[in-house]
Amino acid sequence: MPQLRIALSQINPTVGDLARNADLVVAWTKRAAEQGAHLVAFPEMTLTGYPVEDLALRSSFVEASRRTLDALAVRLADEGLGDLAVVVGYLDRSATATPRLGLPAGAPQNAVAVLHGGRVAMRSAKHHLPNYGVFDEFRYFVPGDKLAVVRVHGVDVALAICEDLWQDGGPVAAVRAAGAGLLMVVNGSPYELAKDDVRLELARRRAAEAGCALAYVNMVGGQDELVFDGDSLVVDAAGAVLGRAPQFEESLLVADLDLPAASTDASAYNAGDVVADGLTIETATLSEAPAAAYEPRPPVIAAKLSDDAEIYGALVAGLRDYVVKNGFSSVLLGLSGGIDSALVAAIAADAIGGANVYGVSMPSRYSSEHSRDDAADTAARIGLDYRQVPIAPMVDAYLGSLKLTGLAEENLQARVRGTTLMGISNQDGHLVLATGNKSELACGYSTLYGDAVGGFAPIKDLPKTTVWRIARWRNAEALRRGEVPPIPENSISKPPSAELRPDQKDSDSLPEYDLLDDILDRYVERDMGRDAIVGAGFDPALVDRVLKLVDTAEYKRRQYPPGTKISLKAFGRDRRLPITSRWRES
Amino acid sequence: MPQLRIALSQINPTVGDLARNADLVVAWTKRAAEQGAHLVAFPEMTLTGYPVEDLALRSSFVEASRRTLDALAVRLADEGLGDLAVVVGYLDRSATATPRLGLPAGAPQNAVAVLHGGRVAMRSAKHHLPNYGVFDEFRYFVPGDKLAVVRVHGVDVALAICEDLWQDGGPVAAVRAAGAGLLMVVNGSPYELAKDDVRLELARRRAAEAGCALAYVNMVGGQDELVFDGDSLVVDAAGAVLGRAPQFEESLLVADLDLPAASTDASAYNAGDVVADGLTIETATLSEAPAAAYEPRPPVIAAKLSDDAEIYGALVAGLRDYVVKNGFSSVLLGLSGGIDSALVAAIAADAIGGANVYGVSMPSRYSSEHSRDDAADTAARIGLDYRQVPIAPMVDAYLGSLKLTGLAEENLQARVRGTTLMGISNQDGHLVLATGNKSELACGYSTLYGDAVGGFAPIKDLPKTTVWRIARWRNAEALRRGEVPPIPENSISKPPSAELRPDQKDSDSLPEYDLLDDILDRYVERDMGRDAIVGAGFDPALVDRVLKLVDTAEYKRRQYPPGTKISLKAFGRDRRLPITSRWRES
Repeated sequence: MPQLRIALSQINPTVGDLARNADLVVAWTKRAAEQGAHLVAFPEMTLTGYPVEDLALRSSFVEASRRTLDALAVRLADEGLGDLAVVVGYLDRSATATPRLGLPAGAPQNAVAVLHGGRVAMRSAKHHLPNYGVFDEFRYFVPGDKLAVVRVHGVDVALAICEDLWQDGGPVAAVRAAGAGLLMVVNGSPYELAKDDVRLELARRRAAEAGCALAYVNMVGGQDELVFDGDSLVVDAAGAVLGRAPQFEESLLVADLDLPAASTDASAYNAGDVVADGLTIETATLSEAPAAAYEPRPPVIAAKLSDDAEIYGALVAGLRDYVVKNGFSSVLLGLSGGIDSALVAAIAADAIGGANVYGVSMPSRYSSEHSRDDAADTAARIGLDYRQVPIAPMVDAYLGSLKLTGLAEENLQARVRGTTLMGISNQDGHLVLATGNKSELACGYSTLYGDAVGGFAPIKDLPKTTVWRIARWRNAEALRRGEVPPIPENSISKPPSAELRPDQKDSDSLPEYDLLDDILDRYVERDMGRDAIVGAGFDPALVDRVLKLVDTAEYKRRQYPPGTKISLKAFGRDRRLPITSRWRES
Repeated sequence: MPQLRIALSQINPTVGDLARNADLVVAWTKRAAEQGAHLVAFPEMTLTGYPVEDLALRSSFVEASRRTLDALAVRLADEGLGDLAVVVGYLDRSATATPRLGLPAGAPQNAVAVLHGGRVAMRSAKHHLPNYGVFDEFRYFVPGDKLAVVRVHGVDVALAICEDLWQDGGPVAAVRAAGAGLLMVVNGSPYELAKDDVRLELARRRAAEAGCALAYVNMVGGQDELVFDGDSLVVDAAGAVLGRAPQFEESLLVADLDLPAASTDASAYNAGDVVADGLTIETATLSEAPAAAYEPRPPVIAAKLSDDAEIYGALVAGLRDYVVKNGFSSVLLGLSGGIDSALVAAIAADAIGGANVYGVSMPSRYSSEHSRDDAADTAARIGLDYRQVPIAPMVDAYLGSLKLTGLAEENLQARVRGTTLMGISNQDGHLVLATGNKSELACGYSTLYGDAVGGFAPIKDLPKTTVWRIARWRNAEALRRGEVPPIPENSISKPPSAELRPDQKDSDSLPEYDLLDDILDRYVERDMGRDAIVGAGFDPALVDRVLKLVDTAEYKRRQYPPGTKISLKAFGRDRRLPITSRWRES
């Protein structure tokens, strides 16, 4: 059987930065060439970054993507890389779609190309367009209708894009009909808790269905609320793992494969044959001669991360890229002495370095002494820039002009803090981080334009019980490495309080967090109704209380800054509820 | 030919309020019965309100909709209305869809039912699901696969839902095959500028294609960013208008039709026949005997609104329903003396009454005397509750604690005003209105957590030049009615200024508004690229300057409150751009 050395370039493109992304392709193709690869593959929509959302509907952007691809093919050859087959995702448009109402303007396509010998040897578009969860691809793209097969050193390599792998039928089914020796899938597959387990099993199953080896290349890095975890992998036709890349790191995964020679029997299949799901086979031969025999390397299989390490990795990667890709170099946050801001500070320091993190303690007359101490302790442990701005003068000025009592006075304190942070941010150029967690956000236990202020909310998708767990994990990790734990033990162990009135505790307004998070998981993540949740054994009055909080907090959540998505249904982009709705579960 | 009196109930349902919406159906069916109608139709998803977004994925909500429909059929008969055929939109689920990845959970359907004789005589689901602009229906619904035809007094009435009318093929094509005498289309068709003209021409064309009369019933009222304008209408097979309801008002449109008798030739078509686009015909006979002959009434055709009146009507309806459906009874806004806040105050007063509008003037040391006078003048003209809260004490308190200069100091003033409004809102329960317009919002010429504060932004979709035009129209309308014009002439005629530093003018930071709005229209509404805009004759440097402002203001726009959509591409929900993007047109 012919040998083939493939390289999967698990890189971190930037949405909209076509020039930088093309540079990345050249640089990583060089690395692949240095490693002796015959074929190198890049993730879905590498040239444009992913997802581009409504940019896909802007023809100037589509044309720029197409031009960048053409120029890239020439440049690769100019730099002596023309012999490699380079598989790269980009944004194209359909030449055959008929304009009609509702068809995306300009008929854009989520496409993949094979660059070889200074030209674009093959173009193909995603067939299955996902339109659920975080995906809206019916809005943006016209589906492709062919199965692309390129012959590389005598091996037929079929191409597919992300969702094509997840859906039954379509390209995977067609690959068997085409008799390909390798299915190369390019992906922009966002991280979700424990998705890596699902992904490997899926790759194995699809390899069996296609009857050939399967290579899966994914991107890494953050893009607004999404974070891509990499986890690129290669399995053979029997499902054995021949290579696996780490999560959340750029990586070139090289794998040596023994693959069946392409059939020379003309009756096996032909270009133009219509196979599964109306797909037409299209072929291109890049090279017929098998690669010269070589000594294969042992498979590289990255160690699996624990669930907590994986979550922490996603949080760090998501925050880092939000900061860097938006052109910031430092972040600013309020340090209350509580667990939420302490964990956010730790994540920020791991993402961009403690010296680039600015913490402000903003005590009020209701702030306890231990809160001030814990805030200062956090700052010292993490090595961040720390200052104190007491809020009494500003609060008193408002109270001298307006009669505010009760909740209005509590919210005022939070808003004075938000305005203080934004003032420093505008003056000094830091990105403000909001420190709220998912449990309080779900219940509306936050102040709009107050603690909700910020450009990014790193832990908005972590339930409070997970905040505690991840904080303990991060401290244990520090001890394991012989470092100072970043989070004061007191911030983890003390009862949570917003400290907006004397002796206030979260438990005055919210159920205990372990119960609350259990109910939120059922209501928000699993879409269970009130009766089903009560049926699972929860106190009906408690369920009613929690569901009412969640149902009435929708407007506040819409105003919350983006944050890295960890679970299936973060609040925000992929959970879309009417603001104005009279529906109540209870 | 048999006669048929039909009634189109152009009503204003509330999303999620199944009980109230069912009450509306009973009340309006009674009115239709009193008018002698044989058939009464209600808009798309009347029972649930529209759009329900992710509520469709919650099975408890789907089941509640189904139960409400069944109970409604019984209740209509109990109240003596069982002889009427009642066509009503609701949320159902598919009994045949096979669960798979990406299929909306629970297989919900956007459905229509015919209630008659105490039971549900027919159910059918929307076939064409829109997934563009403001619509995301592939995310929420499973398409229907039948053409429902009910025989009412010997006339075959085919049913379709909204997008089924807009797309070629599908139900309209099937109607001709089925030989129906009337096509009844139920709609939730949002207002867009001049959409009424498009709608009538579409109805005429589809009537010709279907070869029969066509009745079109739409809802009215606001739902978050959408506003439904009604404009229900009836055309005969030749396209003549037999009835048309007003825009933005609830209305029962009654029309007398002479329609072809249903074929008694069994060979014409049969239930179970597969016709256009894979649709299966399903039939139900409610009544065979033609209605007793009666004297038809003359057609009722509402006068057309001017474009400006239409826009103003949309703004008033959108604001009114956002306030009322969210349980507020009063609104609060900052009155600067400028045109934007004056127009918003006028809209609010027209929506909920001047006595329910609270205006606050918040002068700073940079506020001119004429601004204070114009703010007070606006308040007096509109009859709203007015107070003054100087912001110097609060601003000085911040400046005593923080070193803020330049833009940071300008933003501080806007944020002190935002915090002041939110304090009063929290204390007294008013909904805060943000007063920004689309031109400044597009360019980022606003302060996050400052003037962007509010629950609703009435004119966020009006370019500044349209703000002036609509203000003049509203004043002229007042004079026409012999009333005091609500907006001070000085607010309209003076040069716009944010008054955040000495002698500041908008024109220091932005191009002249007539030029700016022309460029924004091309870039934002029409998705033209930089080169195409320059090609239309604009100064390249100016185009680059405007496009850069728009491209870099995306994050601020995402944080802006919802507001009534007037044009095709408002900022916010239906224009989806990555926050993190390095793409620049220039």
